[in-house]
Amino acid sequence: MIVESIDVFYLSMPQVLDIGDGSQDTLLVRITGGGYVGWGECEASPLVSIASLVCPMSHSACKPVQASVLGQELGGVDDIARIGDLVRENSLDLLQADHTLSGIDTAMWDLLGRARGVPVYELLGYRCAFPKTPYASVLFGETPQETLEMARHMRRLGYRAGKFGWGAFGRDDLQADIDQVVAAREGLGEDGVLLIDAGTVWVDDVERASRRLPVLQDCRVTWLEEPFVSGALDAYRQLAAASGTVRLAGGEGSHNTYMAAHMIDHGSVGYIQIDAGRVGGITAAKQVADYAQAKGVTYVNHTFTSHLALSASLQAYAGVERDHLCEYPIASKPLAVELTQEHLLPDSAGQIRLPDAPGLGITPSPEAIVKYLVDVEIRVGGKTLYRTPDL
Amino acid sequence: MIVESIDVFYLSMPQVLDIGDGSQDTLLVRITGGGYVGWGECEASPLVSIASLVCPMSHSACKPVQASVLGQELGGVDDIARIGDLVRENSLDLLQADHTLSGIDTAMWDLLGRARGVPVYELLGYRCAFPKTPYASVLFGETPQETLEMARHMRRLGYRAGKFGWGAFGRDDLQADIDQVVAAREGLGEDGVLLIDAGTVWVDDVERASRRLPVLQDCRVTWLEEPFVSGALDAYRQLAAASGTVRLAGGEGSHNTYMAAHMIDHGSVGYIQIDAGRVGGITAAKQVADYAQAKGVTYVNHTFTSHLALSASLQAYAGVERDHLCEYPIASKPLAVELTQEHLLPDSAGQIRLPDAPGLGITPSPEAIVKYLVDVEIRVGGKTLYRTPDL
Repeated sequence: MIVESIDVFYLSMPQVLDIGDGSQDTLLVRITGGGYVGWGECEASPLVSIASLVCPMSHSACKPVQASVLGQELGGVDDIARIGDLVRENSLDLLQADHTLSGIDTAMWDLLGRARGVPVYELLGYRCAFPKTPYASVLFGETPQETLEMARHMRRLGYRAGKFGWGAFGRDDLQADIDQVVAAREGLGEDGVLLIDAGTVWVDDVERASRRLPVLQDCRVTWLEEPFVSGALDAYRQLAAASGTVRLAGGEGSHNTYMAAHMIDHGSVGYIQIDAGRVGGITAAKQVADYAQAKGVTYVNHTFTSHLALSASLQAYAGVERDHLCEYPIASKPLAVELTQEHLLPDSAGQIRLPDAPGLGITPSPEAIVKYLVDVEIRVGGKTLYRTPDL
Repeated sequence: MIVESIDVFYLSMPQVLDIGDGSQDTLLVRITGGGYVGWGECEASPLVSIASLVCPMSHSACKPVQASVLGQELGGVDDIARIGDLVRENSLDLLQADHTLSGIDTAMWDLLGRARGVPVYELLGYRCAFPKTPYASVLFGETPQETLEMARHMRRLGYRAGKFGWGAFGRDDLQADIDQVVAAREGLGEDGVLLIDAGTVWVDDVERASRRLPVLQDCRVTWLEEPFVSGALDAYRQLAAASGTVRLAGGEGSHNTYMAAHMIDHGSVGYIQIDAGRVGGITAAKQVADYAQAKGVTYVNHTFTSHLALSASLQAYAGVERDHLCEYPIASKPLAVELTQEHLLPDSAGQIRLPDAPGLGITPSPEAIVKYLVDVEIRVGGKTLYRTPDL
């Protein structure tokens, strides 16, 4: 079969708040071929990804993403990798292309899985999908008391692991951060797995990050996530050398496999966190998972959006039994919750299992698409390059 | 003063050809403040950069670029760096933002230079701008004979250094590549400085690249540029260890200072090539120039567009006498030539000198803008987020 169409849908909450919550909008990708339909999602800035899909060519290495995908043969998994390589070559100078490819690649895996009647993880070569231990992922509370209550709430919901991040953490005085981490530990209980996400707040300042190490060690934090921006490999390496029992986690900013490998090789992270909606799709995510295995680094998904994106991000390391933690957003906006017909809910043991169903096993809800759809039109030189498509 | 307005103009040749010629379109940036006007350019994919300037917020770390610039205090050079940091923080998850910031940062330097009546290189701390030796930068000919004639033409025009790149180089059989390089050397003459640009054609395949080393060494090629994509640091390092007298050059794909530093530290390049229109502007380019000095690596501009972009890229290392080579496009499309009122032409000694004039010393031509302007309109949710502004 060939890739017959690529349609993208900009979905958004009616109001987007100025908080670190990535579930407030999304770009949904629908691909058709051979009578089948596949779905994927691109992380962040839907309008910009739409523009990169349809923009006029600037030169031979700066073509719109769709030019390398539409009409391509999609006969097997090798074709997905080949199409990804084509996009990277033909859109070399189009910075946004990696994000756009991510949703397209994911939709091609979904389509191929549905066409063959097998889950994506089987197409990836995994014999089965091991259950994952979800960690509840939330933003820090406004106050330590609020964080304490959120952590207790996590435990009541059955989560053994919880991650707190963003908000004011790392920005104000040291004592405020200490109080927040202590509150999170208290709320999670002594046996909870506590994870802290600094959201790149210290950019590349090792000294500011280091001051938080004692409280993280005292509170037995498993990982400190994104103390720095993705490019600050030296800072990562220096902090990792000093962080003792607290391992560093990072990698969600990786928009290709090289960046993720650099985080492992030159940044000394203990956990590599990959978002299939940003790294270049499931193809690239699987390559990073393989590399992490070879290097003894633990792979974890990064997901802060819908359960379609969650399924996509889990497929890449579904068959890796050792890497059992998974990010699981528990305070998503209604858009992210309503977007899919199926949901990946914890089982009776509190574990997350991928659907034993064709493709991603998750299908967008037409009603949700209609409800949250944002009308977009892009006109260049008198021609309409994009208009929100019909469902 | 404060940044009062940011206007961007999509300019394009009437027809964009499927060749590696980056002079076929551009995104021109105009910034006003305190009664002054500054100009800059963003490299590649104008529509996508426009979208990133005006897109709706996705979350607190994914805001439109203009949100971090408009209304900001612009009292001195530190403010330009501060505004750049704001963009990187507030648009952390907006991949295209680095390209867009590049033109904005450049325009702010131009504006500040004009307001103070001094060239940008003085604002950067350089006492003077040393003349640079231009290398003529062209695409390989269709045949070795065509390449030979282009090289001879370069010499007749007075250039002592020439770079050939892209086209079919590296794609076909080895002999075709050998014939091309030999022809370029013959045309340039024994005393010419010969540079070869592989345009990332071997992605990260060290073996394929290595096969070309003998002819590059035999023809005394000064540098082999971009054998691999920017992220393939291991491949760069391996090839550099085997390349002998031929040094590796790369870095044009760097869209932040970290990537450029990684090319130096982990990729072992001998020449770091930076495009101010992509790396984050003149601020980031100057940081890379300083880092290159400290590491003993030669800095070179990357420029394949207008003389406004050329001036911007030269400012960053204007005061570094040792790094005397500069890329100089000699076969640009009429858009790139007509775009500016002034041009940086070789002097009687064949050298390029930056204007001793306020800002970048180069002003866009209103007639050229009108002639090449592409009408763009972006509507989201019933609102017009962008419409090509009036001159």
